[in-house]
Amino acid sequence: MNLHMENLPHSVELVRSEEGAVFRYINERLLPDVLQIEETKDWRKVVHAIKTLEVRGAPAIGLAGAAALALWAEYDKKDCIAASEEIATARPTAVNLRWAVNRALDSISGLPEDKVADNLFNLVKQMEAEDEETNRAIGKNGSALLGAHTRVLTHCNAGSLATFYYGTALGVVYSAAAEGKIDHVYADETRPVGQGARLTVWELAQVGIPTTLICDNMAASLMAQGKVDAVLVGADRIARNGDAANKIGTYGVAVLAKEHGIPFYVAAPFSTIDATLNEGSEIEIEQRSSSEVLPRQIAGVDVWNPAFDVTPARLITKIVTEKGSFLPTELAAQL
Amino acid sequence: MNLHMENLPHSVELVRSEEGAVFRYINERLLPDVLQIEETKDWRKVVHAIKTLEVRGAPAIGLAGAAALALWAEYDKKDCIAASEEIATARPTAVNLRWAVNRALDSISGLPEDKVADNLFNLVKQMEAEDEETNRAIGKNGSALLGAHTRVLTHCNAGSLATFYYGTALGVVYSAAAEGKIDHVYADETRPVGQGARLTVWELAQVGIPTTLICDNMAASLMAQGKVDAVLVGADRIARNGDAANKIGTYGVAVLAKEHGIPFYVAAPFSTIDATLNEGSEIEIEQRSSSEVLPRQIAGVDVWNPAFDVTPARLITKIVTEKGSFLPTELAAQL
Repeated sequence: MNLHMENLPHSVELVRSEEGAVFRYINERLLPDVLQIEETKDWRKVVHAIKTLEVRGAPAIGLAGAAALALWAEYDKKDCIAASEEIATARPTAVNLRWAVNRALDSISGLPEDKVADNLFNLVKQMEAEDEETNRAIGKNGSALLGAHTRVLTHCNAGSLATFYYGTALGVVYSAAAEGKIDHVYADETRPVGQGARLTVWELAQVGIPTTLICDNMAASLMAQGKVDAVLVGADRIARNGDAANKIGTYGVAVLAKEHGIPFYVAAPFSTIDATLNEGSEIEIEQRSSSEVLPRQIAGVDVWNPAFDVTPARLITKIVTEKGSFLPTELAAQL
Repeated sequence: MNLHMENLPHSVELVRSEEGAVFRYINERLLPDVLQIEETKDWRKVVHAIKTLEVRGAPAIGLAGAAALALWAEYDKKDCIAASEEIATARPTAVNLRWAVNRALDSISGLPEDKVADNLFNLVKQMEAEDEETNRAIGKNGSALLGAHTRVLTHCNAGSLATFYYGTALGVVYSAAAEGKIDHVYADETRPVGQGARLTVWELAQVGIPTTLICDNMAASLMAQGKVDAVLVGADRIARNGDAANKIGTYGVAVLAKEHGIPFYVAAPFSTIDATLNEGSEIEIEQRSSSEVLPRQIAGVDVWNPAFDVTPARLITKIVTEKGSFLPTELAAQL
């Protein structure tokens, strides 16, 4: 397998143009049909991009949130508390967003006003570099768990398109592929938004990793046929006991993996762990519009559309982080 | 709950017009946007409707197959063996199609040629009446398994739209609702063709049963929240040992039901049992076009699109038939 890592895109990036700071991001609503890079100096447009899933993925929306605050500092400067709260609450489930905004706020606490914008810009660049470094460490640690000829099943997109670069669950795939361990990746399409069908298979194809798309409801059959050696997913928020919130459908895949004796790995940076929560039942689950599931309403028909679910720690084989791979029960001791 | 059974449509029907026999069917590709009734005298058009899922559902395609042979006898009459084989093999997994065509062929064996068309027409009308009678018996037998305030999860469409009238799994819902036992029905959307999203919720809404659509990957969360008391599905072919083939995704729902301690019922007529097969692994699984899953191909991305899966007997609580409800292990003794 020839890997073309040079084709793997960055999903979000804060850059400095001659006219000041600009947030640049791939509009992920348009993939895989169009690879469109958007640029904005308007922090409210970044919030809108997060809400509409133009930018998505827990680490990426954390970076986008910090970048939004940097744009606010450079171009707006009014009512810091309201702006940072609007950014931090753009979506509720991924802890990285609040974490990143708080880190940005902490970094400017007590600074003279004329230093705030530059400071935030530099912090975001540092966070981007850290994100890549973290993902490469997750990749290396996760790869160590995989054997030769591994066929991976993944759900949603926890790839370069969900981070600054490289990805978490797909970072493990890239590291393992570089070591010659990956035979194939199966991607759940991930209804209703289709992060698997639109993003994961596209991203893997860019790099040249053999990939097959399945509908979410085909994962059970695929496992029963002995075609999956490991499940690799990301996470949006992890409680102290190792319960992990991730894209809706992840919990079902974990149950299926247990039934078929397949290891189930969650790959996520430590910033995804919410030390304030003892267990997954405390995680707020975002409910999204019925129109994502059913574009044209049918009279008399309701729709239930939770964006995430919680996989209990007992179904997780290992949580793969930048500091190593841990049993869910070992996690709290690392905090 | 006020039930409006008068709004429940027949999905297929062979009728006699002044100009001869006509096959009338709801074009289920157009639901729920348009309720369009198609009419044809061309048996090849019936075969096409079966292949393209304009007519679908194991009992309904059995009736459509027999009706196609009746149209052949009235208007074509050439090469009976080739025509009946083309009809019987329009789709491979549901045994009802082959069963119905064989029954039709048996009924005309040795008849004088001028009696064939009338005989087949009458047979199809008899099979339609039997189908409704069978479904009402399945409904009654299945309802006896349900308690008060039952919240049902179903997958695909095993309703009136999958049969002549009333349905198998949804027949159980209608019978139980008439007895005041149904609080709610949740319907999996059933990717990639969307029989749940397009047909089941529409059909239930016609009758006035409270219904909520979910994506296939949300069933696990729904169960974890304690919102499902029973799973009810149909079947396309059942082996002697009770293994049951049904729409792709059914097997995964059965695994989830077991994990959550929820009874899993398969509702199907005896004509769905294939006495020639000892176990489910012998059932041929139809593979369909990748375009159903991914309308626009992505370079470097494969698609796997099996139309059915097999639920092993050990995951099935009861198989509900017109003769009663049986443990999968009791089935062979009833043949």
